[in-house]
Amino acid sequence: MTDTTTVVSEVAAHAAAAARPFAATSPSARGAALVAVADALDAHAAELITVAMRETGLSEPRLTGELKRTSWQLRLFADAIVDGSYLDARIDAADPAYVIGPRPDLRRVLEPVGPVLNFAASNFPFAFSVAGGDTAAALAAGCPVVVKAHSGHPELSRRTAEIVAGALDAAGMPAGVFQLIEGQQNGVELLQDERIRAGAFTGSTHVGRLLADIAAARPRPIPFYGELGSVNPVYATYADAGLLQDFVASMSGSAGQLCTKPGFLFVPADADLSPIATAAEAVAEHRLLNPGIGRAFEGRRAAVLGAEGATVLAEGALREDEDGQRYATPTVVAVDLQTLRAHREELLEESFGPLSVIVRYHDAAELPAAHEELFPGNLTSTVHARAAELADGSLHQLVGALAATSGRVLFGGWPTGVSVTPAMQHGGPYPATTTDATSVGTAGITRFLRGVAYQNAPQELLPASLRDDNPWGVPQSFSAAGSSTEWGSFAR
Amino acid sequence: MTDTTTVVSEVAAHAAAAARPFAATSPSARGAALVAVADALDAHAAELITVAMRETGLSEPRLTGELKRTSWQLRLFADAIVDGSYLDARIDAADPAYVIGPRPDLRRVLEPVGPVLNFAASNFPFAFSVAGGDTAAALAAGCPVVVKAHSGHPELSRRTAEIVAGALDAAGMPAGVFQLIEGQQNGVELLQDERIRAGAFTGSTHVGRLLADIAAARPRPIPFYGELGSVNPVYATYADAGLLQDFVASMSGSAGQLCTKPGFLFVPADADLSPIATAAEAVAEHRLLNPGIGRAFEGRRAAVLGAEGATVLAEGALREDEDGQRYATPTVVAVDLQTLRAHREELLEESFGPLSVIVRYHDAAELPAAHEELFPGNLTSTVHARAAELADGSLHQLVGALAATSGRVLFGGWPTGVSVTPAMQHGGPYPATTTDATSVGTAGITRFLRGVAYQNAPQELLPASLRDDNPWGVPQSFSAAGSSTEWGSFAR
Repeated sequence: MTDTTTVVSEVAAHAAAAARPFAATSPSARGAALVAVADALDAHAAELITVAMRETGLSEPRLTGELKRTSWQLRLFADAIVDGSYLDARIDAADPAYVIGPRPDLRRVLEPVGPVLNFAASNFPFAFSVAGGDTAAALAAGCPVVVKAHSGHPELSRRTAEIVAGALDAAGMPAGVFQLIEGQQNGVELLQDERIRAGAFTGSTHVGRLLADIAAARPRPIPFYGELGSVNPVYATYADAGLLQDFVASMSGSAGQLCTKPGFLFVPADADLSPIATAAEAVAEHRLLNPGIGRAFEGRRAAVLGAEGATVLAEGALREDEDGQRYATPTVVAVDLQTLRAHREELLEESFGPLSVIVRYHDAAELPAAHEELFPGNLTSTVHARAAELADGSLHQLVGALAATSGRVLFGGWPTGVSVTPAMQHGGPYPATTTDATSVGTAGITRFLRGVAYQNAPQELLPASLRDDNPWGVPQSFSAAGSSTEWGSFAR
Repeated sequence: MTDTTTVVSEVAAHAAAAARPFAATSPSARGAALVAVADALDAHAAELITVAMRETGLSEPRLTGELKRTSWQLRLFADAIVDGSYLDARIDAADPAYVIGPRPDLRRVLEPVGPVLNFAASNFPFAFSVAGGDTAAALAAGCPVVVKAHSGHPELSRRTAEIVAGALDAAGMPAGVFQLIEGQQNGVELLQDERIRAGAFTGSTHVGRLLADIAAARPRPIPFYGELGSVNPVYATYADAGLLQDFVASMSGSAGQLCTKPGFLFVPADADLSPIATAAEAVAEHRLLNPGIGRAFEGRRAAVLGAEGATVLAEGALREDEDGQRYATPTVVAVDLQTLRAHREELLEESFGPLSVIVRYHDAAELPAAHEELFPGNLTSTVHARAAELADGSLHQLVGALAATSGRVLFGGWPTGVSVTPAMQHGGPYPATTTDATSVGTAGITRFLRGVAYQNAPQELLPASLRDDNPWGVPQSFSAAGSSTEWGSFAR
């Protein structure tokens, strides 16, 4: 084995060498390659899920669903790129009569930014890991990908990477479009390499911010798309037994180790919260992902249980086995709004695991301002209200506050169980994400694209997407000569 | 006058208070307001140009053209937003049969990020200043704007701000949508204020990087769109007298104080460069924008003229008047590629003023690699070649290298004289811009937007752009129920 720096430099060199040939592939060829990866993952499902169960402690049904989602999002991205609309191809005809002076022939298209370094997450060993959403988006955009494997599932990472690389190679994609590295130091060194042009990450606020700062401090900074932390407040105008049971199911699923776990539930002060204990006791213990996450959860749980003014609704249990793995059942405490404000240190931070806080409020009119004060950046916010309240305009202020601070606003339902679709937004104001970009759904492809304009270019030297003969048949938006004198005249 | 921090805090509070009402205005109302600003600027052209001439030393024809461009780009943005396509409204129908599990009704739209702080430039007192492109883009997006005036044209900044604010107010836009601040310290403090949600900047690499670092180091970082520095290399396969004369005209226009000035011209080693001196001598002296820029140019000029191996083709003149203003005529030196590589320190840095370097090359095959090595990030790169060369494929490698490192690639012509159009890209890899986003043309609006998704929202609480009755008549892209089973199947 050569030294670390040599390995990192070779990986960067391979990715850089692949960048231009990969960028030149047609959307349909790249789409077919993504589908080939999806097929290969599906074909190896049994093997992969077995390894994942052992390495993460997640359940077979959960991992089966997650792998299906993972191969599905590759197909979704393939479908999203084939028509070429994501390229946003624009053609301005040369216009000697352009209002501010003769306009040349200008053509602009979104091109891949170059090699992307993707830091895998621990809690979704498929969907946010080696072949996950960031990888799918970057490959769809035409960027070579290097994944820094998460140490929580090394064997799964290696096997997944073999399958992905093999399928891309068999589909005729250039060598070097997909590589795996391991080790924190390698990840940091590669993030600082000039040849890496964007970073992506899913994980804790602490680590995500460290990496974002490294990306921003490079001699030539690069964009860093981190999905860091979110407590996903839920505002209920009523709280019956069904709602409280569903809440416990959502906050305890996958042992609460989801970035969309509802960490806070606001309920009227007079709500009967007795169904919480019953529901929580019915949840079986679940292993936390790894000893490090277990330790961190133990600390957070102790802080919350010890917060002055917190009423314990369900204490839950937490035990450690001989390997240092921890197993938990749900913990739920209740506070009033005043206590939450007074004990932000202990209560407001994200608890990654099966722990949530119920906040009793006396006056619903306080909620919009309280939300903006306490929760300035989240992946999601949720409203549970009766049909009449949804229709009568009384929630307008609250919904405005939620939309201003969240990537996704839900009405009814629970934020866990993120669908992968064209209209999904999984990213919001910091610290939900380091930028406001989405890391789930096809809109996330724009993270890995940049505009390039060609002025008076001969047809022979234009990208296919901008040529008059349009060989890929992509949508081209056209600004005709002579049209400029009309611009802005709608307002007259 | 209250103290600085109070002023900054009040400005931030006004901007924040305007954010939600402004975001709720319809694209056509906002477009009409932009047109009203354009009309008001045009109506005050004579007065504004007189002030600008005195404060910047730029010529009346140049400033007349620049003001026309400035009002024009407001009209262009107005026209670009009225149809609502920039909102990228997406609607996924609820789909119980969605392949990865039942899909809720999901609707996503781009919403304004919130208050934007825009640092004005010195060299375009209209087009990149108070009412310039960043202001137009942010207002078009629906974001309140605070402009930090450039100290080089304070009176013009104040008068322009009065006109802009008055027109927006008369058009019915909320109070606080447009404010001006002055002073470096105020700018830095406001950039650190929680209520500012994005920054924009046009200026030097040094100052731009300082501000970008401040934005990235905030407790909650924000995107910072800086347009910093560019040397805009030009690659010529031939160099006749006409080409060399046009080069001198481009590098000396506005005293070379343009971010798209061609700072380097590559020519075959045997080219006759004698027309350079003749053309340079015919250029009248031009004032530099202000004493600070004059001083910096004096230093850069001395470094370049003193670089070992540089042949002086036109020494130019530089004199200082009693007010510390400097006046220059063009300086052009020639080096070979080897000298350029050996003396990067002196030669490669941008010289903001009428100074450029001609690089003689012996082998055109060296150019792609040399370009990528020496010029990793530029606003523009240009090719001058004969028709046969443009058609025969011999430039393919070079154009690939230019596109990978530049925002705009020109064929013939000169990079100065940036048109404002839908397909313009004025932004490229660092240090051209801090991100790859464009600061000219309508594509720049995306800098000030972020995605928000609504899940199972009642019609009454959806933004107008996402409602079924679509009152603004915006394009809505629709994903129907039952369609998902087909996704990715094109590859079969």
